[in-house]
Amino acid sequence: MGAVAILSGLLTEILIPAAAVVGIAFALVQWLLVSKVKLSPEDSANSKDGVSDYLIEEEEGLNDHNVVVKCAEIQSAISEAGATSFLFTEYQYVGIFMVAFAVLIFLFLGSVEGFSTKAQPCTYSKDTYCKPALANAGFSTISFLLGATTSLVSGFLGMKIATYANARTTLEARKGVGKAFIIAFRSGAVMGFLLAANGLLVLYIAINLFKLYYGDDWEGIFESITGYGLGGSSMALFGRVGGGIYTKAADVGADLVGKVERNIPEDDPRNPAVIADNVGDNVGDIAGMGSDLFGSYAESSCAALVVASISSFGVNHDFTAMCYPLLISSMGIIVCLITTLFATDFFEIKAVKEIEPALKWQLIISTALMTVGIAIISWIALPSTFTIFSFGDQKQVKNWELFFCVAIGLWAGLVIGFVTEYYTSNAYSPVQDVADSCRTGAATNVIFGLALGYKSVIIPIFAIAISIFVSFSLAAMYGIAVAALGMLSTIATGLAIDAYGPISDNAGGIAEMAGMSHRIRERTDALDAAGNTTAAIGKGFAIGSAALVSLALFGAFVSRAAISTVDVLTPKVFIGLIVGAMLPYWFSAMTMKSVGSAALKMVEEVRRQFNTIPGLMDGSTRPDYATCVKISTDASIKEMIPPGALVMLTPLIVGTFFGVETLSGVLAGSLVSGVQIAISASNTGGAWDNAKKYIEAGASDHARSLGPKGSDPHKAAVIGDTIGDPLKDTSGPSLNILIKLMAVESLVFAPFFATHGGLLFKIF
Amino acid sequence: MGAVAILSGLLTEILIPAAAVVGIAFALVQWLLVSKVKLSPEDSANSKDGVSDYLIEEEEGLNDHNVVVKCAEIQSAISEAGATSFLFTEYQYVGIFMVAFAVLIFLFLGSVEGFSTKAQPCTYSKDTYCKPALANAGFSTISFLLGATTSLVSGFLGMKIATYANARTTLEARKGVGKAFIIAFRSGAVMGFLLAANGLLVLYIAINLFKLYYGDDWEGIFESITGYGLGGSSMALFGRVGGGIYTKAADVGADLVGKVERNIPEDDPRNPAVIADNVGDNVGDIAGMGSDLFGSYAESSCAALVVASISSFGVNHDFTAMCYPLLISSMGIIVCLITTLFATDFFEIKAVKEIEPALKWQLIISTALMTVGIAIISWIALPSTFTIFSFGDQKQVKNWELFFCVAIGLWAGLVIGFVTEYYTSNAYSPVQDVADSCRTGAATNVIFGLALGYKSVIIPIFAIAISIFVSFSLAAMYGIAVAALGMLSTIATGLAIDAYGPISDNAGGIAEMAGMSHRIRERTDALDAAGNTTAAIGKGFAIGSAALVSLALFGAFVSRAAISTVDVLTPKVFIGLIVGAMLPYWFSAMTMKSVGSAALKMVEEVRRQFNTIPGLMDGSTRPDYATCVKISTDASIKEMIPPGALVMLTPLIVGTFFGVETLSGVLAGSLVSGVQIAISASNTGGAWDNAKKYIEAGASDHARSLGPKGSDPHKAAVIGDTIGDPLKDTSGPSLNILIKLMAVESLVFAPFFATHGGLLFKIF
Repeated sequence: MGAVAILSGLLTEILIPAAAVVGIAFALVQWLLVSKVKLSPEDSANSKDGVSDYLIEEEEGLNDHNVVVKCAEIQSAISEAGATSFLFTEYQYVGIFMVAFAVLIFLFLGSVEGFSTKAQPCTYSKDTYCKPALANAGFSTISFLLGATTSLVSGFLGMKIATYANARTTLEARKGVGKAFIIAFRSGAVMGFLLAANGLLVLYIAINLFKLYYGDDWEGIFESITGYGLGGSSMALFGRVGGGIYTKAADVGADLVGKVERNIPEDDPRNPAVIADNVGDNVGDIAGMGSDLFGSYAESSCAALVVASISSFGVNHDFTAMCYPLLISSMGIIVCLITTLFATDFFEIKAVKEIEPALKWQLIISTALMTVGIAIISWIALPSTFTIFSFGDQKQVKNWELFFCVAIGLWAGLVIGFVTEYYTSNAYSPVQDVADSCRTGAATNVIFGLALGYKSVIIPIFAIAISIFVSFSLAAMYGIAVAALGMLSTIATGLAIDAYGPISDNAGGIAEMAGMSHRIRERTDALDAAGNTTAAIGKGFAIGSAALVSLALFGAFVSRAAISTVDVLTPKVFIGLIVGAMLPYWFSAMTMKSVGSAALKMVEEVRRQFNTIPGLMDGSTRPDYATCVKISTDASIKEMIPPGALVMLTPLIVGTFFGVETLSGVLAGSLVSGVQIAISASNTGGAWDNAKKYIEAGASDHARSLGPKGSDPHKAAVIGDTIGDPLKDTSGPSLNILIKLMAVESLVFAPFFATHGGLLFKIF
Repeated sequence: MGAVAILSGLLTEILIPAAAVVGIAFALVQWLLVSKVKLSPEDSANSKDGVSDYLIEEEEGLNDHNVVVKCAEIQSAISEAGATSFLFTEYQYVGIFMVAFAVLIFLFLGSVEGFSTKAQPCTYSKDTYCKPALANAGFSTISFLLGATTSLVSGFLGMKIATYANARTTLEARKGVGKAFIIAFRSGAVMGFLLAANGLLVLYIAINLFKLYYGDDWEGIFESITGYGLGGSSMALFGRVGGGIYTKAADVGADLVGKVERNIPEDDPRNPAVIADNVGDNVGDIAGMGSDLFGSYAESSCAALVVASISSFGVNHDFTAMCYPLLISSMGIIVCLITTLFATDFFEIKAVKEIEPALKWQLIISTALMTVGIAIISWIALPSTFTIFSFGDQKQVKNWELFFCVAIGLWAGLVIGFVTEYYTSNAYSPVQDVADSCRTGAATNVIFGLALGYKSVIIPIFAIAISIFVSFSLAAMYGIAVAALGMLSTIATGLAIDAYGPISDNAGGIAEMAGMSHRIRERTDALDAAGNTTAAIGKGFAIGSAALVSLALFGAFVSRAAISTVDVLTPKVFIGLIVGAMLPYWFSAMTMKSVGSAALKMVEEVRRQFNTIPGLMDGSTRPDYATCVKISTDASIKEMIPPGALVMLTPLIVGTFFGVETLSGVLAGSLVSGVQIAISASNTGGAWDNAKKYIEAGASDHARSLGPKGSDPHKAAVIGDTIGDPLKDTSGPSLNILIKLMAVESLVFAPFFATHGGLLFKIF
């Protein structure tokens, strides 16, 4: 055993919550700064903070008062009637699900030792006594509820700030692109910091409260705490899958009738589905992405903690080292805080072309600073040598080796992000080639787009494979878990950038609906374009971290189920592997079909309104936005049941009837197959979207030769874009949830499967 | 040990070659019957066998003499200028490849014991001496060359008979649909029986010749014989990948200029690429499919033999039991022979609607009869109990258990075939739903088509998983190998049905080009339509068997490399698994891009001819068919190099630098991931093709509401069909080769990798 960590236990107890509180405070400050932009006309006109920029509206003689009032109205429609109503409808179903699943967890885990209340010998140190399985069942249930609630609250707050910020961004765009950028980015930061800090704080408090009961039984504490990851991730199912269906149903439905049949522009206030479409951006990209990344974060922390608890940290009760994953996250909050200042305070955006580099620098700065941060934490929080549990064996690890594990995850994330950008941004040749293929029609566009997506998996997979190999070799499954945590350590910045996109997108929609001048729309479009590229980077991160997280959870599951090898050369494992590799296809077929059905319902309603509401087309009557919102809401929740059931039931059925070996195979198979489809679907969709934008923007001779809007190549590009919508925003990202949720569910239910599972093989 | 087999060794020695000879004789009889249709006008007019059917041409007053001459001309263009010229160009490259790879095999395997000529202790029975590694290297090289040559000869003969039969089918179509069907089907049977019987005979002779040198060292014989599988499969790389690129480059190139730009019908003789297009059907669907299935057949036999040689059959020198795989194939030839008579002699096709059922009954009859055949062989050729080598252990197996292994493979093939039909035939709702989605445009068509393909993997994967589980549990890797063999045991019938399709397709093309009447074209179209559905079934079979074969080869590789577990929980294996799962995506991206580039070259040439050859459009000058054929030929061979190199080099690089554990991971990963993409790509493409045909045929109210040709839904369907072309005919089926070839290559090179592999890990 090496020396004890430099950082004392007491200081650890102070530093973690302190970092979380700093994060929350920083988020609130950002919110305050955003709220300074007033949505009531009086204040805006006589603004007291000395804004001397003239407003475009004034210059063009538009009535400023009216514009502000209209913006406020639209914002309230998106926020109150749309987003909030969706969330509250969703919460009714979520509530039922949470209660039912909580009962299930309690019953399954409680039954492991027949609901006995007697203390049992510990699994890993047989000479001591641990709390009964019934207690673990109870505490797992509690942490499941905690994780779910934290995810819901974070998602709710994120939606609130996003819908709070969109109209304000529009109004600031009158003053200049830099001002608008800062408002949008600050709002994104509120979301990012709240989520990261809340996630950390709740987890930390839960551990400390559980300790009051468990005392020295750390095995019990951290096994129970895995429920936190399951809670976070099962909410991500609703966020990602439900949100993904919502946003694309509204988008496709609005476009098919509005743009195609009625020939009115995008975001036209006469389109009944326009509010639902704008709500969808928030529901899908903010709440969905947020819950996805929160789930990854919670799961990788839990996976690391559960492995650590049965390693030397846990056995020797070294609290500081045990909290290494939480300290990494704490450092991440501080690093991201400094990084944010680079975008908001240290430098100022003056021109449109500075936006995209500014966002990319956020990623690079945070990664570089975090590398130093990880080195510091690894040095002060870890003993110089320690042992890690590795499938029945112990593995000697040095503190600098663990530094490499975390750092390689962090940098792999950056590599994946930039490769994703290369394949989806129209500044580079892959997307330009796809755009060029539109010359010979939609068919070649689709073929080239699919081939691009397939090709774009190569480097990310090598990046993931190298991270896995290095971290696995250095510190077994603990290494993988902290590598995942490394990739997620800059989550606050990542989320800020992600949330920035839909806020800008909404701001553009509001400008259009409020009838603001063309120049405002141009500014918000520039903000949005930069957001599109970074959104693709965010998706790359989300998938990469999902892959590492699932593997870490898989490792924790295998440890907890007391399996020492998962041998492909046994029939039980192999059939699991091949069926597991099939599940992402089944799941994608379901989600793609769901979008289709939900969009069809929306199309019918929009058509009905155009046909039956008099004066809708000439703008004299307002459409019934609320019905469209309700249709999207109801359809998305109804349609997510089959894919949701596939994800939630597969581990339970396989574990109960086929046992832990087959389940291991299923998890490994769905992981290695799902990550490929997720990356290729997201990138194919992103490339089609940007190929269309490339032709529309006509920024080069080549692009102009393909355009303008309405030309044959452009029409072919629009077909590709429409195909890509469900791929990149629904089925692709939903696969993250498939692979993570099955893994964390298996982990939580591992004791049950290990005891009572494999019924079918026991019978025959 | 159980009793010795009922069948004596001597009888086995007689029965196997006898069955092969019967198969070859049957094929020649069929050829003779086909050749009775004369392509020289005199004989046809005064036919001596008393054909009294009047010919449509006579009825319509067309000059019969001219028609026959024209058909003969076109046939010779397809056969001589096209197919034969392609094959001979291909053979030049194949020749270079074969020599280079043969040298590689000899050097790699010879180096295992440093080119020593001394006898070595056997691997599995240490007390006896086996022949030196150098001898195994030499004999492996010989069997590689034998396998490659057999594949080439079978492919050459298949192409010859197919191009010999197409014009004859056209001419017979004048007499009636039944006559035409029989000619096309008999020609397919020639291909099927020649391939199955040749494959068996050469393998059998090789084993007997090798025995002269090896004597009692059966380990050595059957290790060396694995080269036969590698040879067959590497020719399949040229056939499937090269052929797939050829056929789609010609097809897409011909359509893009002819149909789209010049507005002339399909198969119009004015189109310079029309001959290349017709050649492509033969190159891709006959030579490609043939070499693919021959490869599977050779590989599954080799995998079974190599496992058997180190099990009790080999150790006890029980020749009859050792030859069980070959006896199964012998029985398969006899069963298929009887089955063929049902289509050609026992019943007569009178109406168009009887064709498809007749073909489907072929599959059902052959499967039912073969089940009995397997039972007989298992009863007479196997001892009642025997032991099978199973990754270091021995496993007790009973003869009826082995019967189940073979039978489950056979029936799984039928299930996969019929599921494929359900998802790709426009008689059922999945394709009709896809057709219906064309109402809202090409985008929804593509989304629904992709979702259909994803969904269509579910049942086949379960069928494969169940076969694997049962055969694996009953008889370890030997069980998997014989299950694959079971699926392929009716290969002669399967190939006959497959080859029937392109022959009918070509017959239609010839009718069009020869300017024959509309009614002839209708008859050949009906033949072709039935062939389309059965082609999809054939592709399903090919993929299913490829999956089982690769697993069997994987098992044999693992045994030969002396690995006892392939543990996913080791970093070396896991990175192999995830990178392996990525390879099918990389490979598909390459093959899709290859088709695109090759088609583009064809487009340029066709445009050039239309623009520079005067009198081409009015039909007064003949286009330069030969240049188009040459372009397709050269492009396909050039474009197959990158994907071919990926397949051939991956096992060598991984094995040499990362070692056998990582290679095991790569093989398992590419298998479980590749089979899904192969199934979904083939079925998506098939569904789009048939959705388009459904709208064109307009056989129901629903179909008519979507049509007619040229309507918006039809245009959307055509886009889907074009996207599906490379998916279903190039990238999808090529994946069979990826997964099989990497596995058999690993098997052949296993001794080298086990001795010298893993350089990278040895250095660090």
